[in-house]
Amino acid sequence: MMKPMPASTTPGAPASTRDRLLDAAAELFYREGVGVGIEALCRRAGVSKRSMYQLFASKDEVMAASLERSAPAYQAFLLPPAADDRPPRARILHVFERLEEAAAAPDFRGCPYVAAAVEVKSPEHPASLVARRSKDALTAFFQQEAERAGAKDPTLLARQLTIVFDGAGARAVVQAQGLDGLAVATVGALLDGAGIHS
Amino acid sequence: MMKPMPASTTPGAPASTRDRLLDAAAELFYREGVGVGIEALCRRAGVSKRSMYQLFASKDEVMAASLERSAPAYQAFLLPPAADDRPPRARILHVFERLEEAAAAPDFRGCPYVAAAVEVKSPEHPASLVARRSKDALTAFFQQEAERAGAKDPTLLARQLTIVFDGAGARAVVQAQGLDGLAVATVGALLDGAGIHS
Repeated sequence: MMKPMPASTTPGAPASTRDRLLDAAAELFYREGVGVGIEALCRRAGVSKRSMYQLFASKDEVMAASLERSAPAYQAFLLPPAADDRPPRARILHVFERLEEAAAAPDFRGCPYVAAAVEVKSPEHPASLVARRSKDALTAFFQQEAERAGAKDPTLLARQLTIVFDGAGARAVVQAQGLDGLAVATVGALLDGAGIHS
Repeated sequence: MMKPMPASTTPGAPASTRDRLLDAAAELFYREGVGVGIEALCRRAGVSKRSMYQLFASKDEVMAASLERSAPAYQAFLLPPAADDRPPRARILHVFERLEEAAAAPDFRGCPYVAAAVEVKSPEHPASLVARRSKDALTAFFQQEAERAGAKDPTLLARQLTIVFDGAGARAVVQAQGLDGLAVATVGALLDGAGIHS
């Protein structure tokens, strides 16, 4: 699933206050938006406000840290494993197949990183900085695969693929329905145009 | 500009309470997000809360009506005039040139309709319904041009172009910078692939 997942903790170990707070934050902000209050957040996490403020200076910091914490699980969901030795085209399409899968769920609310950046309305908000890094990591994956495939302009292609990823996510939100192959078809057309047939 | 513009009123006539309220709402929601309160909104519009509640049942209704009210100005900004007799490719690219222009402004916060749908987190919110209609109108324009150009699958192409539009808008927000030709280049590649060279 694309919605933020609790990041892994040591198996068997009880989740720390910090982890419980950030996992609750990731889920609540994704589902209800940036307007979620400190009270609701702490209640959900089972953490006192005092404990929260001992760990974080502000709600903005909690939001950024929660996005940061779910980034590895998010990437693991979207990207093919390093050991997957399929050619670049298949590895790129893998990301969009995952997106289509996530977008078909009724509780899909788009890419959590784009949503955060759109909602906070400020490029300097700590959550915006995390969103930018997350998106840059996706673009870097596309670029690496485009280079492997010998694309003429891997940087341009990687940015185009990122745009399709985010536009497809936005479409699923606005239309409130799955993508039905649209993201994969669009990327297929761009890869064809770039001469990446395998 | 892509941010919501005051819709036109009869020249010389004083703006009605409703119009002042909706114009202030469009501006505030776009700039600050769905969390803007009724108090701030009424203060900005110079309208009493009582007057607001005489006109609208809820903030959700104000939000939807403000998006509805700015739709014609938004479309007029993005779409080429009907009298523009350039071929389909140029008319489609016109939309993306406008987007690039809007996205270069420091106060660009993405497509106001997508932003609203992302922020309200509910497909049944009245603002989500307006967002869907606005996006469908853009897709319908693309489809009409794709048909004129003899595209093999105008419906698919129109959806792909809409995805690029929204993904490019998301990118400008996340990266907090202009698109530098990326939206136009991506659409050019898709139009090439669809055999639309003029």
